[in-house]
Amino acid sequence: MKIEAVDFYYFAMPHIEDIGDGSQDALLVRIAAGGYVGWGECEASPLVTIASMITPMSHSACKPVLASVLGASIDGVEDIARINASVRHNSMDLLHADHALSGIDIALWDLLGQRYQQPVWKLLGYAQSHPKTPYASVLFGDTAQDTLDKAKSIRTRGYRVAKFGWGPFGTGSVQDDCDQVMAAREGMGKDGLVCVDAGTVWSELAQAEARLEMLKEARVHWLEEPFPMGELDMYRALAAQSGSVAIAGGEGAHNEHMARHMIDYGGVGYVQIDTGRIGGITIAKRVADYVVSKAVFNPVRFINHTFTSHLALSASLQPYAGLPEHDLCEYPVELKSLAYELTHDHLVPDANGNIAAPDKPGLGLTPDLAALQKYLVETEISVGGKTLYKTPAL
Amino acid sequence: MKIEAVDFYYFAMPHIEDIGDGSQDALLVRIAAGGYVGWGECEASPLVTIASMITPMSHSACKPVLASVLGASIDGVEDIARINASVRHNSMDLLHADHALSGIDIALWDLLGQRYQQPVWKLLGYAQSHPKTPYASVLFGDTAQDTLDKAKSIRTRGYRVAKFGWGPFGTGSVQDDCDQVMAAREGMGKDGLVCVDAGTVWSELAQAEARLEMLKEARVHWLEEPFPMGELDMYRALAAQSGSVAIAGGEGAHNEHMARHMIDYGGVGYVQIDTGRIGGITIAKRVADYVVSKAVFNPVRFINHTFTSHLALSASLQPYAGLPEHDLCEYPVELKSLAYELTHDHLVPDANGNIAAPDKPGLGLTPDLAALQKYLVETEISVGGKTLYKTPAL
Repeated sequence: MKIEAVDFYYFAMPHIEDIGDGSQDALLVRIAAGGYVGWGECEASPLVTIASMITPMSHSACKPVLASVLGASIDGVEDIARINASVRHNSMDLLHADHALSGIDIALWDLLGQRYQQPVWKLLGYAQSHPKTPYASVLFGDTAQDTLDKAKSIRTRGYRVAKFGWGPFGTGSVQDDCDQVMAAREGMGKDGLVCVDAGTVWSELAQAEARLEMLKEARVHWLEEPFPMGELDMYRALAAQSGSVAIAGGEGAHNEHMARHMIDYGGVGYVQIDTGRIGGITIAKRVADYVVSKAVFNPVRFINHTFTSHLALSASLQPYAGLPEHDLCEYPVELKSLAYELTHDHLVPDANGNIAAPDKPGLGLTPDLAALQKYLVETEISVGGKTLYKTPAL
Repeated sequence: MKIEAVDFYYFAMPHIEDIGDGSQDALLVRIAAGGYVGWGECEASPLVTIASMITPMSHSACKPVLASVLGASIDGVEDIARINASVRHNSMDLLHADHALSGIDIALWDLLGQRYQQPVWKLLGYAQSHPKTPYASVLFGDTAQDTLDKAKSIRTRGYRVAKFGWGPFGTGSVQDDCDQVMAAREGMGKDGLVCVDAGTVWSELAQAEARLEMLKEARVHWLEEPFPMGELDMYRALAAQSGSVAIAGGEGAHNEHMARHMIDYGGVGYVQIDTGRIGGITIAKRVADYVVSKAVFNPVRFINHTFTSHLALSASLQPYAGLPEHDLCEYPVELKSLAYELTHDHLVPDANGNIAAPDKPGLGLTPDLAALQKYLVETEISVGGKTLYKTPAL
């Protein structure tokens, strides 16, 4: 089969709020080959992603992403690896290419799943899709009382694990943060698992160290992104003294190297991979393989990063679906209507409260085009008098 | 002063060739504040850069680059650091932001240089702009004979140092590469300095190891980018056995962390920084400071990466202008007419064959708007029925 068409669509809520909620817009990729169709989602700025797909070539290592995709052969999984490598090579100097590639790679896996009537995790070589315990992923409340209310509500809805992040955390006093974390602990109950996401708020090791005792006391399971992602020395120094509190990070990784650096040089206990950013399922699976290869000496856990639709959630579960020891998954529970309505079906917890990558062909979920119509953002880009992009019909 | 206007312009040669020549298009940034104007250039895909400047916000950590720039106060150099940090914070999840920020940061330094009638290197705290020995930066010829001719011509034009890169190098046999390198050595003469740029061509350590003896025999000064930038372990392993041949890399660094990783984990002997990619002069200067701070234990050399205009060349010289021990500079000698005509004046070798950051206010060079007019690429981006970008008048 040849890749005949690659279409992409920009969707957004009517009003985008200035909060750390990544579910307010979406960029969907649709790939057609040999009568089959696959869908993928980029966790990225939609307009910049569109531009990187179709931008005129700057030089041999700065080509538009589509140049390596349209017309390529796609018959087996090795073709996806080849196309993925080809984009990274031909668009090496196009910084945004990894984000755009992610949606393309995901759509190619979905397409092959349709072609062979197999779930993606089977195409990846796994025998089974193991259930994961979903953690409810929410923002901290503006006050400790708000956070307490959120935590109680999460617990009432049946979640045993929750992660609280961003909002005011880390920006005020240690006592303010302590109040927030203790409220989360109280709301989740003694046996609940509480994780904290600092959202890269600190620039000094000491700022994180000052919170370590409090986090240990609250039995926080992991502290996520205390520092900007590249601060590997600070990550490693904090991990060396964080004891029962694992250090988590990696969501910003836009290639395999960055994820490996977080493990090898940053010493993280959880590596959090967003398939919509890292270069798709192909690259995320390589990180999962790396984690498995390190298991004896460095028991790091693989976990998805997902703050958008259930299509993105399924894509992020596939790379580690077959790894039973890696048993948590991020599960966004405050989705905006766009992200929720993006798919016909949803990945809902089973009787045991668990989530699993679907047992259906491809990603196992398909976009609800009728519902999406109202979120479609008409976009047009023209360069030198030629229209290079115009939103296609949905 | 408040930043009143940020305009950006896309220029391109009429025909873009599929070769590793980054001088075929350009994205210029013009910033106005308090009656002063500064110019900067992004070493990046022009269309994607424009999109990242003006894209609608996706969420609080994925804002358009301009959101952190327009209206900001700019009176002293500390304001540039603040604006730079603000862009990186507010656009953390916008992958392309570092490339767009680079042109903005450079333009802000140029603007303050105009305001205070000081060269940028003085504003950076240097007492003097030390001369650098320019190396002629060219592509390998298609054959060893072509390379020999190129090298002889470079030598005739007075260059003592040259770097040959990309083209067929590394893609064929070790003997082919040996022929190319020996041709470069022959053409440059016994006392010439020859550098080789592998352009990230190899994916295995052994491929580079197989060329080491030949490179040592040809007395190659450095081997640049044998592997993709993130392969820190392979860089370190090669550096440990490369002896007299230094390993060079870092041009792809789009933040300070990546440059530090190349030094600390990759063990490079030369760190090559492009101010047009790494986040501007502010970030490049931090890397230079880091290099100086490491000097006793790890004598790594700072050097610019520049393959575009003389405006970009001046911007890339400023961060290490005051460091006499770091005495080489990349000097592109095969510029396309666009890149050459981009500035009124040029940085030409002095009587000793050396180059220096100019002793004039700001970057010391200004764009030649009349000459640029013919390269201007009219561009328009509309989202949701609103025109977000239309090429402004030049």
